[in-house]
Amino acid sequence: MTEPKGEWQLIDWIRGRTRLDPATVPIGPGDDMALVDLGESGCLVTTDTLLEGTHFRLATATPRQVGYKALAVSLSDAAAMAAEPVCAVAWVGLPETRDMAFAEQLCLGLSDAAARFGCPIVGGDVTSWPHPLAIGTSLVARPAGVAPVRRSGARPGDVLLVTGDLGGSVLGRHLAFVPRVKEARLLARAATLHAMIDLSDGLSTDLGHVARESGVAAEVEAAAIPVSADAERLARTDGRSPLDHALNDGEDFELLLAVSPEDGRRLVEDNPLGDLRLTAIGRIIEGSGVTIIGADGERRSLEPCGYEHFRSDGGASS
Amino acid sequence: MTEPKGEWQLIDWIRGRTRLDPATVPIGPGDDMALVDLGESGCLVTTDTLLEGTHFRLATATPRQVGYKALAVSLSDAAAMAAEPVCAVAWVGLPETRDMAFAEQLCLGLSDAAARFGCPIVGGDVTSWPHPLAIGTSLVARPAGVAPVRRSGARPGDVLLVTGDLGGSVLGRHLAFVPRVKEARLLARAATLHAMIDLSDGLSTDLGHVARESGVAAEVEAAAIPVSADAERLARTDGRSPLDHALNDGEDFELLLAVSPEDGRRLVEDNPLGDLRLTAIGRIIEGSGVTIIGADGERRSLEPCGYEHFRSDGGASS
Repeated sequence: MTEPKGEWQLIDWIRGRTRLDPATVPIGPGDDMALVDLGESGCLVTTDTLLEGTHFRLATATPRQVGYKALAVSLSDAAAMAAEPVCAVAWVGLPETRDMAFAEQLCLGLSDAAARFGCPIVGGDVTSWPHPLAIGTSLVARPAGVAPVRRSGARPGDVLLVTGDLGGSVLGRHLAFVPRVKEARLLARAATLHAMIDLSDGLSTDLGHVARESGVAAEVEAAAIPVSADAERLARTDGRSPLDHALNDGEDFELLLAVSPEDGRRLVEDNPLGDLRLTAIGRIIEGSGVTIIGADGERRSLEPCGYEHFRSDGGASS
Repeated sequence: MTEPKGEWQLIDWIRGRTRLDPATVPIGPGDDMALVDLGESGCLVTTDTLLEGTHFRLATATPRQVGYKALAVSLSDAAAMAAEPVCAVAWVGLPETRDMAFAEQLCLGLSDAAARFGCPIVGGDVTSWPHPLAIGTSLVARPAGVAPVRRSGARPGDVLLVTGDLGGSVLGRHLAFVPRVKEARLLARAATLHAMIDLSDGLSTDLGHVARESGVAAEVEAAAIPVSADAERLARTDGRSPLDHALNDGEDFELLLAVSPEDGRRLVEDNPLGDLRLTAIGRIIEGSGVTIIGADGERRSLEPCGYEHFRSDGGASS
C-alpha cells in the first residue's frame, strides 16, 4: 500500500482530470470557492468538513461551538472571495451515543453563525452512526459589487497585508473566530484587491497557495508578522517561538491580501477596518516559493508547515 | 440521556426555529432541495452524506461505486424537483488506513456521475481521520423550463404514479441506480406535476412525506405496486414478502408523482419515458396518513417503515 499523500496532491490529481467549461465554471477547484455561471447571475460555492479529533475535540469544545465553527469556516471562504453569503446547507454524522439535546446544540451553533452573518441554513442531512462526530456545510455566495477575488491575481511589486493577529488559535479562537465577511467587502470597496485568501492552514501554507496559484514568489518580514497574544502564551508552554506559532498554527481565519504598493500604503494609513489591525508583512516578487527575512536581514525559505490535512503522518495540528 | 429521536423530529425542530424570508428562500428545509433567489435567477441547493457501515459497506461496494452513489443521491434530489443540475462540491473524511489509489477511485466514481449527468464537481474538501469513510456532496441546480416541483402540492383527486420497479435495491441497484434527472424533466414537460419526491427512504416513508407536506391523505393499491425482480429474489431468502420489500426497502431512487387524473391517464398511456415503466399506484384523498388497499379490498394503515436514519435503534437498512 502506498502512503497517503498530501491533500494538495489529490486536488492536483482531480484538477488534472477535470475539464470544466470556463463559460459555465469561470472559477473551478483550487480557489476558496468555485464560481458558477447560472445564466443571469453567477454564484459561488464552497464546502468544508469538521471531523472530531482532527478539527475539534468534544472534551474542549461544546457542540454549540462546533456548530458555529462548521458554518464559520465556510463563511471565511466567502470572505476570502469578498463575496456575499446567500445560504448554506449542513450535514451531520452524529455519534449514536449522543442525544437529541446534543444535536440541537449543534444546530443552535449553526444558527448562531447563520444569523450573525445573514446566511440562512436552507437544508441539511442528519444521520447517526457508531463513530465520532462529522459535520460539514456547503455555502452559496454571490459576487456583490466586486468581482470575486481569487488566489491567483498577485503580481510582482504587490504588497502583502494581513488582518488581525496570528497564531495560537488552538487556545480557543479557532472555535469562536469572526469570519471576515464584512471586512473583506470593506477592503474590496476601498482598494483593488489583486489576490486574497483566508488563513485556514497557516500563513506559511496559505501564502504558498497564493504564490503558486499566481505564478510568483513572496517574501515576508519576520519582524512585521502580527503575533497574537495567544501565540505568546502558547510559546511559553511548548518551547516553540511565538513567530513559529504565528506562521504555522493555522485556523486564524484572518485575511491575507495582495494589493498595489499605493493601495497598500493607503489601506494601512486609513485602515477601513476600524479596530481590526491591518499589517503590511511583505511583498510579491518574480520567481516561486516563499521567503522569510529575519530581523538581521537573513533570508530563508518558508516551507508550508501549517495545518495540512491528509499528510503522511495522518495528522492535523489543532 | 434521552433517546435519539427520528431525523424528522430534528428537522421539525430546526424548521420551528428557523425564520426564512420567503422572498429570498422561496423553498426552505423539508423538500428535496431548497430554492434560493439569487436576484436575476434562483438556484436550488441540496446536500447528502454517505457513511460507511450505514449507506454502504466496503466489503461489498468498490470505492468507485461509493463515489458514484455519493453524487447520484444528490442528483436524485434534483430530479425530484424536475431541476437541471448545475454543479456539485464533494467532501471526504478518508480513513487514514486507505491510500491515494483508494481516494482516486472515490473521485473517479464522483466523476462518472458528474460526466453522465452534466454536473461538474467544482470544489471539495478532503481530510483523513482514523475512522470509517464518510463522503458527501452538495449540489446546485436551477429551475429549467418548469417551476421546481415540490412535495407539498398534491391535491385530493390526484393520482399517484411511480417510475420503475421497487424493492431489493440492496442487492446492488443502490450502488448503480440511475438518478431520474432526464425522466423528471420529460414528465414535467408532458404534464403538470402537482407534487414529486424521489424514493430514497422507501415508498411507505416517502409517500408519507408527500401526504404530510401536502396536508392530504394517500391510498395505494397493493396489487398495483411495481415489485422489482430484486424484491422477489430477496423475499425468497428472508421470508419477507416481495411487496414488503417494494414498500419499505428504500434506496430505489425512482420518482413518485401526483398529477390530475387526466394527466395520469395520459402519462400512463403515452409513457414519455420509453422503456422505463410508469405505473399508477393510487390516489390522493382528503384527510391524513397513508392507506394500503389489499387485493381483497381490505384497507390498512401503511406506516413509514422504510429507510430512516437516526432512529432510536441507531440503524439503517442497507
